[in-house]
Amino acid sequence: MAPGPRPRPAPARPHPIDRPLRRRTVTTIEPLHPFHTRELVDHDGVAVPVTRVALTNGDTFDRYCTTGPARDADDRLPTPRRAWTDARRGGPVTQLQLARAGVVTEEMRFAAAREGCDAELVRSEVAAGRAIIPANVNHEELEPMVIGRAFLVKVNANIGTSAVTSDTAGEVEKLDWAVRWGADTVMDLSTGPGIHETREAVLRASPVPIGTVPIYQALEKVKGDAAAMTWEIYRETVIEQCEQGVDYMTVHAGVLLAYVPLTVERITGIVSRGGSIMAGWCLAHHQENFLYTHFDELCDILAAYDVSFSLGDGLRPGCLADANDDAQLAELRTLGELTLRARERGVQVMVEGPGHVPLDLVPENVRLAHDWCHGAPFYTLGPLATDIAPGYDHITSAIGAATIAQHGTAMLCYVTPKEHLGLPDRDDVRTGVVTYKLAAHAADVAKGHPGARAWDDELSKARFEFRWHDQFALSLDPPLAQAYHDETLPAEAAKTAHFCSMCGPKFCSMRISQDVRAAFAEKSREFVELGASVYVEARAGAAPGA
Amino acid sequence: MAPGPRPRPAPARPHPIDRPLRRRTVTTIEPLHPFHTRELVDHDGVAVPVTRVALTNGDTFDRYCTTGPARDADDRLPTPRRAWTDARRGGPVTQLQLARAGVVTEEMRFAAAREGCDAELVRSEVAAGRAIIPANVNHEELEPMVIGRAFLVKVNANIGTSAVTSDTAGEVEKLDWAVRWGADTVMDLSTGPGIHETREAVLRASPVPIGTVPIYQALEKVKGDAAAMTWEIYRETVIEQCEQGVDYMTVHAGVLLAYVPLTVERITGIVSRGGSIMAGWCLAHHQENFLYTHFDELCDILAAYDVSFSLGDGLRPGCLADANDDAQLAELRTLGELTLRARERGVQVMVEGPGHVPLDLVPENVRLAHDWCHGAPFYTLGPLATDIAPGYDHITSAIGAATIAQHGTAMLCYVTPKEHLGLPDRDDVRTGVVTYKLAAHAADVAKGHPGARAWDDELSKARFEFRWHDQFALSLDPPLAQAYHDETLPAEAAKTAHFCSMCGPKFCSMRISQDVRAAFAEKSREFVELGASVYVEARAGAAPGA
Repeated sequence: MAPGPRPRPAPARPHPIDRPLRRRTVTTIEPLHPFHTRELVDHDGVAVPVTRVALTNGDTFDRYCTTGPARDADDRLPTPRRAWTDARRGGPVTQLQLARAGVVTEEMRFAAAREGCDAELVRSEVAAGRAIIPANVNHEELEPMVIGRAFLVKVNANIGTSAVTSDTAGEVEKLDWAVRWGADTVMDLSTGPGIHETREAVLRASPVPIGTVPIYQALEKVKGDAAAMTWEIYRETVIEQCEQGVDYMTVHAGVLLAYVPLTVERITGIVSRGGSIMAGWCLAHHQENFLYTHFDELCDILAAYDVSFSLGDGLRPGCLADANDDAQLAELRTLGELTLRARERGVQVMVEGPGHVPLDLVPENVRLAHDWCHGAPFYTLGPLATDIAPGYDHITSAIGAATIAQHGTAMLCYVTPKEHLGLPDRDDVRTGVVTYKLAAHAADVAKGHPGARAWDDELSKARFEFRWHDQFALSLDPPLAQAYHDETLPAEAAKTAHFCSMCGPKFCSMRISQDVRAAFAEKSREFVELGASVYVEARAGAAPGA
Repeated sequence: MAPGPRPRPAPARPHPIDRPLRRRTVTTIEPLHPFHTRELVDHDGVAVPVTRVALTNGDTFDRYCTTGPARDADDRLPTPRRAWTDARRGGPVTQLQLARAGVVTEEMRFAAAREGCDAELVRSEVAAGRAIIPANVNHEELEPMVIGRAFLVKVNANIGTSAVTSDTAGEVEKLDWAVRWGADTVMDLSTGPGIHETREAVLRASPVPIGTVPIYQALEKVKGDAAAMTWEIYRETVIEQCEQGVDYMTVHAGVLLAYVPLTVERITGIVSRGGSIMAGWCLAHHQENFLYTHFDELCDILAAYDVSFSLGDGLRPGCLADANDDAQLAELRTLGELTLRARERGVQVMVEGPGHVPLDLVPENVRLAHDWCHGAPFYTLGPLATDIAPGYDHITSAIGAATIAQHGTAMLCYVTPKEHLGLPDRDDVRTGVVTYKLAAHAADVAKGHPGARAWDDELSKARFEFRWHDQFALSLDPPLAQAYHDETLPAEAAKTAHFCSMCGPKFCSMRISQDVRAAFAEKSREFVELGASVYVEARAGAAPGA
C-alpha cells in the first residue's frame, strides 16, 4: 500500500468530508484566567505554544498548552503539518520508521519542545518503541505530542455521541472544553447515528491527537448485530477513519476465542464494549477473532497513514475481584506478540490497561505490561482502586491512576464522576480532566520528572506570600479556586489580605510563620553583631532529630 | 489525681455544662437510602450497631455504622458507658492501663464487635500501644471504636466555628452530617467566640470520639496574643475540655525552640496553626515550649479522664518542597520520645503526620513514624500529592491518603474541596468524608484487611446483574449515585433495564457478557453430552498467557 498523506484508498461509500461546516466567526478557546495568554516560545528553533501565566510579582510561569491556535470562520484549524508531510512523500511514513532511520522529524522536534527536552531523546524513545507520536498524516491540524514513560504523563478525555443522547455540535464543544482543561488527547467514542460527521467535525477542530474504537462504527453498519460483523466491513471502517485523520485506534485483537472461557467465572465478565463484541463474534462463529487473523493486513493500512495502535484490553477486569486474573493476563501476553508484529510493519504501538485494580496489584500491571509488551507505552483507564463509590469514580480511579503512572504508565484515560451511572456533561468533562491532570502531575513529581515540581513550588510561594490571584492563576482550575475563595471572602481586599477564612486574622499560621521568619532575620543581624551563641545553641539542639 | 468519671477537678470558671439545650422532638439521623436501616446485631454477646442494606435479591449486606442511636428531646444521646465506667471506679482508668492489666473492657468488646474481630486482638494491640480507643470517661454517649493499623482505616472530619463565620447549631448539624456520611471521629476545631458552648453541644450529641486542639481555645483566652499564653491558662483549658468529655487532644509538644530555625528556609514555613503559635511563643520568650516542659503533668491530667494524645505535627510540611525535611523529622523524633513518656503514665497516644508529600516520599513517612514512635497509630492529614490543584485538594490528598493508609496509617484526617480557599459547608463536608471513606477503603482492600473486599464484590455483583437500586444502596453516597443515573435515565423502568445511558441497549458489554456466560452454560451442557474437545481446546489455548 502506497504510503503518504494523500493517496487515499477509495472508501466504500462517499464521505461528506468536504461538506462546509456552518459559518461562524473565528473561534479561539478562551483562556482559563485573565492572567493567562497563549504564547509561542522558541525552543531549539521550534516555536512551541505555552500558556503563560503573568504573576502579580512581575514573574511569569509557562504551562504546557493544549488548546491550539484560533480556528477560521469555517471552524477549521490551520494545517501546519501539511508542509511537513508533503516534504516526506515517497519516503517512510511513520514516526517509528523515520526514527529508526535516524530522522528527527518536525513532529519529534515539536513534541520535544513542548516537553522541554532534547529532540534526540524523543527520536530514540520512538525508535525503541518506548514512546509514540500519534500523528495521522491526514490530521494536518495536529500539534504533535509524545506519549512515553520518559515524558510527562498524558491524559486522554473521552467524548462521543451515544444511541441515547448527544449531538455533533455538542461533541466539538466537548472537545474544546476538554483541551481547554488540558486533555492531551481526545477519544471520540461515538455510537449511534452520525458517527462519521461527528468525527469529521472533531478532527478538523482538534489540535490534539484523536483516538477512536473503529468497531463501534463497524457495529453500526451491521445494525448492532455482532455476529453479522465481517473483516471486510471492519477494514472499510478503518480505512474511512484513517482517511479522516484519526491518530490512534483501539483494536481488540487480543481477545482470542481461547480466552473467552476464562471470563465465565468472573464477577463482571467482560466489561470492555469492544471486547464483548469480539467475544460474542468469536463464540457465534466459533472462529478466531478476525482482528487477530487479519492483524498484519491491518498493520499495513495503519502504517500507510501513520495511525498508531492502541492495543485494546478487551478482557480488562470490571471489578477488583477480577483484577490480574487469567483472562486479563492471557490477553496481555497476546498484546505483547501483536506489539512486535506491528512494529515489524512500522506501526507505532501503545498498549491499554485496566480498569479496576486494588492498589496492591497496581505495580504488577505496569511491570507485566512493560515486560511482556516490549516497553510499549502503557495507557490505562484509571484504574479504580475500589468499587464502592459510584458518583466518585473520578476519585477512586485518580488514586489508581496516580499510582500506576508513578510506576511508569505513560497516558491515563480519564474517568468522570458519571462513570457507571450516566453520560458526562460539560461539568463532568471538566472535573474528569482536571482530576486526571492532577493525578498525572502527582506522578510526574513522584517520578522526579525534570522540572515537574517547579509548578508546585511556584504555587506554594504564591500561597505563602498571600498572592491569592497568583494562586488562582497557577491552579489547574482557576475559576473554581477563585469561586471557592469568593464564597467566604468575596471582597477584592481579601485577595491581598494576609489571612483567609479558615483561620481568620488572629490564627493565620502562614502570617505567624512570616513573623517567625522576620524574627529570625532580626536574630541573624543580632547574631552577626553579637556573636553566634544563641543561634548555634538552637542549631545544635536540632541535631538529634535532624 | 483521682481517676474515674465523676471526680472532676474544679475548672477555673463555672461551665454551663448542665444548661438545658433547646427542646425539640427526638432526633434520629436519617439513613442515606430507603433500603438502609440501623440494626443491632450480636457479635460474641455484644449488640453492635450496623447499617443493614436490604438488597432486591433478598440478601442483606451490613455496613459499619457511625450514626449512633436516636437522641432525646433535649438533643442528648443515651449514656451507655456510664454503667461501664462506674463499675471500674477506683481502679485503673485508661484503656491502655486496663489492657496492660489483661482486662478486656466493654469498650474493647464493643470496638471489636464493630470490626468483626476478636476482643483479645483489640486488647493486645491497645496494650502494645499500636492501637488506641479514644474514650474519655466523661463522654458517656460514645460508641467506642479503635484506631490502629490492625483495624479498619478510620476517617476524621473536622468541624468548628471560626472568627469569620459559623455558629453552634450549625456545628451540631455538621457533626450529624459528618457521621451520617461515615466519619469515625470528629474534631471540633472551633475558634472565635462560644467555643465552650459549641463543644458541649457537639459532645452531648456525638456517638463518635471528639478531638480538639486545646491551644485554640487557650489563645482565645489571651485574646489571640500567643506571647501572653501561659502553661496555667493552657492547663485550665485542657481540664475544662477533659471535664466535658473530649476524647483526644492534639498537643504540639514537639515544636521545640531548637527546631524553629529549621523552618526558616522553607517555602511555606510553619503551616500548622498550633505549631506556629508555639513557635511564636518559644521565640517571644526564648524559652522551651511549655507543652514539652510540662508534658508529664499534662499526661497525668489526660490519664485521669482517659483522654488520648494526638501528638501534633506542628512542623509538618505545607508544600511538596518542604516534605520530609529536617524540621519535620526533628519533631517526629521528639514525638517518639513523648510517646514513651505518655505511655509510661498510662496515656494512649497516636501521632499526627503530614500534610503535603510527593508520592515517592509517602512510604518513608509511615515507616519513620512507626519506627521512631514505637508503633503508635499514625494519623495523617492527607497528604496532598501535589500543590497545583486548589479546589480539588480533597482529591490531591485522597491520592496521598490512600497510599499512606496502604502503608499502615491508621486514621486519615479528611480534606474538603475548600482546603486552602475557604470554610467548608455541608456539601464540602459530605464530599470530604465520602472521598476519605473511599480512600480508607481502597487501603483496607490493598492491605488485604479481612472481609474488606466483600463490599466491592457485593456492589460489583449488583452492577453485573443490573440491580441499579442495589448499586445505589450499596454505594458510599446513594443519593448522589441515583441522582447521576436519573439525570440521563430518570424512568423507574431504567432501574431494572439491562443497559445504561453510556452504551445504550445495543452495545452493553455487561449484557453481551451475560449472553456469553449463557452461551457457555449451553456449551457446558453440550460438553457433557458430546465430549470435551471444544472446551479443552479453548482452555489449552489460554495456557501461554495464564
